[in-house]
Amino acid sequence: MKAVDRILDLGRKVDPVIMEFLERNADRDFIPVLRHQIESGGKRVRATLTLLSCAATGGSVKDGLIPAAMFELVHNYSLIIDDIIDRGEVRRGVETVRKKFSEPMALLAAMFYRETLDEMAEEAHSSPEIRRLMRETIKELIEGERRDILFEQAGRESPYVESLRMSDVSFREYLEMIGKKTAALFKASCLAGGYASKAPRPFLDALNEFGWKIGLAFQVMDDYLDIFGEKTGKERGKDIREHKLGNIALLHALIDLDDEGRKALKEILSKTQVTEMDVVSALTLIEGTDSRSKTIELAKKLVEDGKASLKALPETDAKADLMAIADFIYERLY
Amino acid sequence: MKAVDRILDLGRKVDPVIMEFLERNADRDFIPVLRHQIESGGKRVRATLTLLSCAATGGSVKDGLIPAAMFELVHNYSLIIDDIIDRGEVRRGVETVRKKFSEPMALLAAMFYRETLDEMAEEAHSSPEIRRLMRETIKELIEGERRDILFEQAGRESPYVESLRMSDVSFREYLEMIGKKTAALFKASCLAGGYASKAPRPFLDALNEFGWKIGLAFQVMDDYLDIFGEKTGKERGKDIREHKLGNIALLHALIDLDDEGRKALKEILSKTQVTEMDVVSALTLIEGTDSRSKTIELAKKLVEDGKASLKALPETDAKADLMAIADFIYERLY
Repeated sequence: MKAVDRILDLGRKVDPVIMEFLERNADRDFIPVLRHQIESGGKRVRATLTLLSCAATGGSVKDGLIPAAMFELVHNYSLIIDDIIDRGEVRRGVETVRKKFSEPMALLAAMFYRETLDEMAEEAHSSPEIRRLMRETIKELIEGERRDILFEQAGRESPYVESLRMSDVSFREYLEMIGKKTAALFKASCLAGGYASKAPRPFLDALNEFGWKIGLAFQVMDDYLDIFGEKTGKERGKDIREHKLGNIALLHALIDLDDEGRKALKEILSKTQVTEMDVVSALTLIEGTDSRSKTIELAKKLVEDGKASLKALPETDAKADLMAIADFIYERLY
Repeated sequence: MKAVDRILDLGRKVDPVIMEFLERNADRDFIPVLRHQIESGGKRVRATLTLLSCAATGGSVKDGLIPAAMFELVHNYSLIIDDIIDRGEVRRGVETVRKKFSEPMALLAAMFYRETLDEMAEEAHSSPEIRRLMRETIKELIEGERRDILFEQAGRESPYVESLRMSDVSFREYLEMIGKKTAALFKASCLAGGYASKAPRPFLDALNEFGWKIGLAFQVMDDYLDIFGEKTGKERGKDIREHKLGNIALLHALIDLDDEGRKALKEILSKTQVTEMDVVSALTLIEGTDSRSKTIELAKKLVEDGKASLKALPETDAKADLMAIADFIYERLY
C-alpha cells in the first residue's frame, strides 16, 4: 500500500494547476466554494493515470500535466453534481460542496468547473483531440448517471423517472452503466496521457483497453466495498439505503437467492424509507449467497485483463507503476 | 409589434439546428428531456440578434446559423439552471424541465447542453474566437447569477450565503450584476454575428456596444414588468416573493421612499414567507414613488444609446431590423 501511495503522489502535481485555473477571473468570495471540492481530498487516481500513461509512452510530466489536471477536474465536476443528485452531505469525511455552501452555489461551482475545463483544453498539448475526448467522456458520465438513477428502485418522486425505472437489470445493462459512469473516465485519463506524449496508435490502443478494464474493476470494487467493506470510512450499505439496483454485489446476490430471498431483497430496495433494520436484513441475505466471491473474482479478472493489455508498451518504471495501480484497485479489498 | 414578430421569425431558423445537435448520441429516452426546454417556447431574441448582426456586417444566414444556435442554447442552458436554483415550476406557461422530468434529469440535461455547445463550437465558423466568447459569457452568467442570489434578502438557508448577503445594493452593483446576468449574453450574441461574417474591428465594436446596451435595457424592462407589468402572462411581484433586491424598480423605490417606507419595503423582502398581502403592500409602496417613470426613462436611454452605437454600420435591412428589436425591448412596456 505504501508503494501505491508514493505512486499516487505523482497525481498531486495537478493540484496547483487546477487551483490556478480555477481562480482565474473568479470573484474573491467565490474562490472558497471553488477550492472546497479539490481541497477535500481524493487520491488523484485519474491524474496519476494520465501522467503515468504519458511517461510510459515517452512523454514528460510537463506534456501530461494539463491533461492530467483536466481529467481530475472532470472527476471532481462529476462529484459535485453527484452530491447534488444524491443529496450527499459528507464525502471523504468532510462536508460536500452543496452542504457547506448551499445547493445553488454548488451548482454554480460545477458550471464554473466546466468552463475552466475549456480553458485548460485550450492550453493543453494535442488540444483538439483532448478536447473531443473530454467532451465525449462527460457525455458518457451524464448518460451513466442517468442510467444509475433509472436503476434505483425508489426515492425519486417523479412520474417521468418512475415510468422509466428498471426493476430488472441484466449484467450487460450493469456493465454498460458502469462503463459510462466510471470506466469511460479511467479510459480517457489513460488515453489523454498517450495523446499528450503523441504516442503511436498501438500504444493508444493499449492505454485505452487498460483504462477501460481497470475502470470497470474500480467500480466493481466500489460496489463490493459498499456491501462487504469494513473499515473503509464509509457507511456499509449506502447503495441499499439509496435504492440502487446498479450494484454488482446486489445483482450477484439476486441471481443466487431463491424466489423468497430475491423478493425480500427487492422489497427492501423498493421501500420509500429504508431503515437500519432493513439494511441489516439485506446484508444478511446477500452474505448468504456467493456474491462476495463472485464479485471479487470479477474484479480480479478485469484487473488481470487490464494489465495484460499493457503488453504492447515497453518495460519502464511508469509501466510498472501503472501495473501497481491496477493491483491496488483489486487489493482495496484487504 | 407585428413587424417585430416577423423579424424574430428569423431566430426560429436555429430550432432544427439545436435539435439536431442535441439529439446526437443522446439516448432515446433522454431526448424528450433535452427537447422540452427548447420546445417550451421563447422568442429566440438572441439567435435573431446573431443572425441580424451577421447580415448587417455582410455575412450570410449560413455563416451565422451555428453561432446563433449556440448563443440561443447558452440562454436555454441558463434557464434550466435558473429554474433549479429558484425552484421554478412554470416558465412560459408550461412546466419547467425540473418540474416535468425531476431535478436530477434537469441537471443532467443542462450538463448535456453544455457538451452540445462544445460540439457546435467545433463546427462553427471562426471557431476559436466564438468558443472563447461563449466560455467567457457563460462565466459571466455564473457570476451574475451568483450575485443575484447574494442580493436576495431571505429564502436560502445557508450560513455561507447569509454571511455574504448584501442588504444594500448600489446602482453600480446592480448594473454590474445585470451586466453579467443578462447583458453579457446579448453582447456576445451580437458580437458572434460579427465574428461569423468576419467583420472588421469597428463593426465588431459597434455590435458589442449595441448588444451590451440593449441587454441592460432588456433586464431593466424585465424588472419593470415584474413590478408594474400587466397582462404579461407572468405573476406580478415574483421578485418580491423571491426576496430579490436586484431589481431596479425596487432600488428606485427605495431611494424615493421616506425612512419608514424604506424600512417597511425592506422588511417585506426579508420575510421568510412573503404573503400575497405583503406583495400588495410592497407594490403599493412602490407605486407611491417615482420608480415607474425613472425605470422607464432608464430603459429608454439604454435603448437609445444602443441604437446610436450602430451608426458605424452601413444602412441595410438587417440594421433596420436590429433597430426595431431595440425599440421592441423598450416597447414591451405597452
